[in-house]
Amino acid sequence: MYRYLKRLLIGEPLKTADEGGQSLTKFKALALLSSDALSSVAYGTEQITTALLVLSAAATWYALPAAGIVLVLLFAITISYRQIINAYPSGGGAYVVATKNWGTSAGLVAGGSLLVDYMLTVAVSVTSGTEAITSAVPALSNQSIAISVIIVLFIMTLNLRGMRESASFLTVPVYFFVVMIVAMIGWGLFNIATGKIEYSACAHVGQAVPGMTMILFLKAFSAGSSSLTGVEAISNAVPNFKEPKRKNAANTLAIMAVILGIFFGGITFLSYYLGILPNGKQTVLSQIGIAVFGHGLFFYLLQLSTAMILAVAANTGFSAFPILAYNLAKDKFMPHMFMDKGDRLGYSNGIISLAVGAIVLIFIFHGQTNLLIPLYAVGVFVPFTLSQSGMIIHWYRERGRHWILNSFFNLLGALISLALVVFLFFLHFSNVWPYLVIMPLLLFAFYKIHAHYVAVAAQLRLSEEQQLHNYSGSTVIVLVSSVTHVTTGAINYARSISENVIAMHVSFDANPKKEHETVNEFKMAFPDVRFVDLHSSYRSVVAPVIRFCDVIAKDSVNRNYSVTVLVPQFVPKKPWQNILHNQTSFRLRQALGSRENIIVSTYSYHLKK
Amino acid sequence: MYRYLKRLLIGEPLKTADEGGQSLTKFKALALLSSDALSSVAYGTEQITTALLVLSAAATWYALPAAGIVLVLLFAITISYRQIINAYPSGGGAYVVATKNWGTSAGLVAGGSLLVDYMLTVAVSVTSGTEAITSAVPALSNQSIAISVIIVLFIMTLNLRGMRESASFLTVPVYFFVVMIVAMIGWGLFNIATGKIEYSACAHVGQAVPGMTMILFLKAFSAGSSSLTGVEAISNAVPNFKEPKRKNAANTLAIMAVILGIFFGGITFLSYYLGILPNGKQTVLSQIGIAVFGHGLFFYLLQLSTAMILAVAANTGFSAFPILAYNLAKDKFMPHMFMDKGDRLGYSNGIISLAVGAIVLIFIFHGQTNLLIPLYAVGVFVPFTLSQSGMIIHWYRERGRHWILNSFFNLLGALISLALVVFLFFLHFSNVWPYLVIMPLLLFAFYKIHAHYVAVAAQLRLSEEQQLHNYSGSTVIVLVSSVTHVTTGAINYARSISENVIAMHVSFDANPKKEHETVNEFKMAFPDVRFVDLHSSYRSVVAPVIRFCDVIAKDSVNRNYSVTVLVPQFVPKKPWQNILHNQTSFRLRQALGSRENIIVSTYSYHLKK
Repeated sequence: MYRYLKRLLIGEPLKTADEGGQSLTKFKALALLSSDALSSVAYGTEQITTALLVLSAAATWYALPAAGIVLVLLFAITISYRQIINAYPSGGGAYVVATKNWGTSAGLVAGGSLLVDYMLTVAVSVTSGTEAITSAVPALSNQSIAISVIIVLFIMTLNLRGMRESASFLTVPVYFFVVMIVAMIGWGLFNIATGKIEYSACAHVGQAVPGMTMILFLKAFSAGSSSLTGVEAISNAVPNFKEPKRKNAANTLAIMAVILGIFFGGITFLSYYLGILPNGKQTVLSQIGIAVFGHGLFFYLLQLSTAMILAVAANTGFSAFPILAYNLAKDKFMPHMFMDKGDRLGYSNGIISLAVGAIVLIFIFHGQTNLLIPLYAVGVFVPFTLSQSGMIIHWYRERGRHWILNSFFNLLGALISLALVVFLFFLHFSNVWPYLVIMPLLLFAFYKIHAHYVAVAAQLRLSEEQQLHNYSGSTVIVLVSSVTHVTTGAINYARSISENVIAMHVSFDANPKKEHETVNEFKMAFPDVRFVDLHSSYRSVVAPVIRFCDVIAKDSVNRNYSVTVLVPQFVPKKPWQNILHNQTSFRLRQALGSRENIIVSTYSYHLKK
Repeated sequence: MYRYLKRLLIGEPLKTADEGGQSLTKFKALALLSSDALSSVAYGTEQITTALLVLSAAATWYALPAAGIVLVLLFAITISYRQIINAYPSGGGAYVVATKNWGTSAGLVAGGSLLVDYMLTVAVSVTSGTEAITSAVPALSNQSIAISVIIVLFIMTLNLRGMRESASFLTVPVYFFVVMIVAMIGWGLFNIATGKIEYSACAHVGQAVPGMTMILFLKAFSAGSSSLTGVEAISNAVPNFKEPKRKNAANTLAIMAVILGIFFGGITFLSYYLGILPNGKQTVLSQIGIAVFGHGLFFYLLQLSTAMILAVAANTGFSAFPILAYNLAKDKFMPHMFMDKGDRLGYSNGIISLAVGAIVLIFIFHGQTNLLIPLYAVGVFVPFTLSQSGMIIHWYRERGRHWILNSFFNLLGALISLALVVFLFFLHFSNVWPYLVIMPLLLFAFYKIHAHYVAVAAQLRLSEEQQLHNYSGSTVIVLVSSVTHVTTGAINYARSISENVIAMHVSFDANPKKEHETVNEFKMAFPDVRFVDLHSSYRSVVAPVIRFCDVIAKDSVNRNYSVTVLVPQFVPKKPWQNILHNQTSFRLRQALGSRENIIVSTYSYHLKK
């Protein structure tokens, strides 16, 4: 049943050797890897105007210069990421670049930031997508958390099926969104040119706004920088591209940056020209949509495409998180389980962890993850800063052709990113402070895990020439609760592996008559087997068993015997029936597993009915 | 650490033989077992007036006759429960009485209803108690769910410590509440008599109210019957009383009924006389308190005592649920784990299940469990009806002295309870329908569990004279992932229990060079041990291992050998480190546990650092 369902949802398992085929064309990669960046136009402009509206509606004209600076940043960051793609074609992004050039700690700061960020990507994108849906269909606004969770689970399932299939599936919404936004901007500008849409800005560009300060402008601009999140996705996923990997990746990045720039600029301009102000019920993008298209079919298509690309943007996190977790696990900073590939060659544990993390965030913030956007931006720009500055070291070390020019571009990227981090910390501290709590904890965990793996490997390594040890014999202790077919089978088995079988029974005060019966029954049924009856006053089976086994174990060490404790149990026909039987055998195995020199063995008797 | 915390919260374990001491005097039993009934005056009157207020404020005078009928019911039900105490001193209440007289199905309906009801008792009492707190301190109203959950966990801890200690602790709030309510009613009546409190009823008794119907009156009255919930608690707990058990229990019941009658009548009268109407912010009882005492110290003491007795009322569920679950488990209708006694002789699993169930209800209904009161009442009156009518059969079967008179009282109780059930279903169906879903599911589960236990016992029973089987030898398969100290230890142990040891390794496509190295390393280290290398294309260790072991098992059956699969693992020094190591050995043990003729054994290598 479970297996059937798994096959249906996830598909037939793929062979390891099939792996090479799972790579991406430019067309598909643009859909899969740029959706995060492109979709951020759905909330980027809104972040700027929301920050400015705190002062007054007139202040919103400053959104235009703020957006202009964001576009300059976009250009600089794109150039410096193209250089990273060329220098580190094996992927891994900021974690790899920072580790190689700055050292382990910087790499872990970058890696840890990104791990948390991908969870935020998923949570923010999915809840923004849900907002696009509820802006169009207000009746659904009560169900927004449920809708968000369903979308996350749906994307998780797609990813457990494997990346290539997901990509084919996901090109549609991305290009659908691109078409809708191009149509909106184009139709909006055409109507402005022909005078069909009137100029209704809240204030003219350049108009003096009482109370406007540099601080507020920087606050608005840094909030808008969230539109730049997601630009790094392509540089992390170079190995997933078709050959020639570097060239394809670099070109995809350039195409994406151009589209993103046009969208962000166009939307901000329209929002200014139409005098649109953020409100809690409808997103800015959907207000522009109504103003340009009217409240008809095209508006609903726009909302649909927005919701869909945001879902795909969440998917970017699902592409990037498992690869990053794999890299960290490979370097022994995260649990090995993140290296296991699933049936369909995706890193299942990474995919599932990400989905769980995002769902938890959605629940904690009741679907209002917009509060998380500044935190999300910090988590992006810290690794940006580390990887860009790391690239300067890289160029200096290699000192190849154009190394000074190359360094200059990366220096530009690094300075911009650093400035953004500083702005975000100073101007949005109330939203950004959790970063200062999470990062030290993550770093502590990374180093703790690393130390453990190193210590284990050292302890297990065979040092000198291996000598096998010859035991003189073996002792088997069989636990007996009552005399049944299970007991018979267990005793038979025990006698096949040892000459020295001891049956052990624990009796309680509660029902002395029944206990006495069990003892007699056993002695009648197996007169030749040595039988020990232990007495417990505390209703605990575990404590007296452990005490007795420890005594036998000590004695056996002296005799050079091995000791096995055989725990008989019956296996019900249906798994649910396990809860109906007391978990004593499980608890005993757990407890005995902690003893040295005792091997725990389970005799399973299989019920037929 | 865990153990220390457990001792601190729950206390030192008690010996089974200490059990006799855990019994109750009348004084303590009244506190422990009547709090549920007494505390229901905190919401009983409010239920009646809320139902009447749907029509008009004038209609609320009908609360007086409705309360009068409830008092008649209380008298009848008390008498019939005294008879049950005398006839069935071993406790178990409605479940036992209905089973013995009506048969198993009726008993299970009664038992199932009560199980669910005790969860509702806890949820309703605790949330009502929280309301008493928030009525006094409105600032806390945002934290009401958190407060409720903390109270449930606190009561659970008390119960895990054992009943007697809880009772000493719990007498205080119950008698505190009794004193406060007596003071409130007395002072209120005194002030009325001396004219200090003015008559301000919304309508005179007997005044014609437009739109008043019989249906509405019955609706109000049946809602008020929720005050009678909890009366059965004493009859269920007769075995916990001090000797003479029957007499003490019957007298405690009588005392409780008198107190309850006075409280319910007095509160309803004051609420009428003072013209108090229910509102969402303050409970009716706290409004009476302000009117009588003024907004001062006595009002706060009243609220405190209400909150405290409601917490103790929740405790009634904790006394009753585990005993009922024990009785059902003993009759094989519920999992055996409900028969396990904990360290302090309470049925820990029952106590914990109840707390979890109540907390889930509190979360689902966001602390507004007042909606559950009609459902709660149905769950009480269905078992009432079954046990009272069962008593008629009991008297008829025995036909002792006064059997016709005895039957008459029980018939009265049964008819009243039945009428209430009918009213509740017809007049409160929108709140009561879940009963029709839950009960069939519970009955199905009970019968399913019963059938399983019966089938298992039949299969395990030794039928004929037992003959031991002699194996000719044993085969041990040791799983090898890499060559370390763990491998060496496992091979040594395997050779101590068998002449026929096979080392088995699974290799993957992913890293053929490393796999080859492992094979060579093993052959170097243990040249004498037979080594089998299995190849897997699907990254699954489990499937090829199972296939190979099945082949060996089949072969061994033919040779009359037993088969052991030895799974080596290392045990990290600290438990948290287990998550850092891949769970392959756990998955293998799980999978191999399902194979017949294969015994699964675990070799644990203990890390020192």
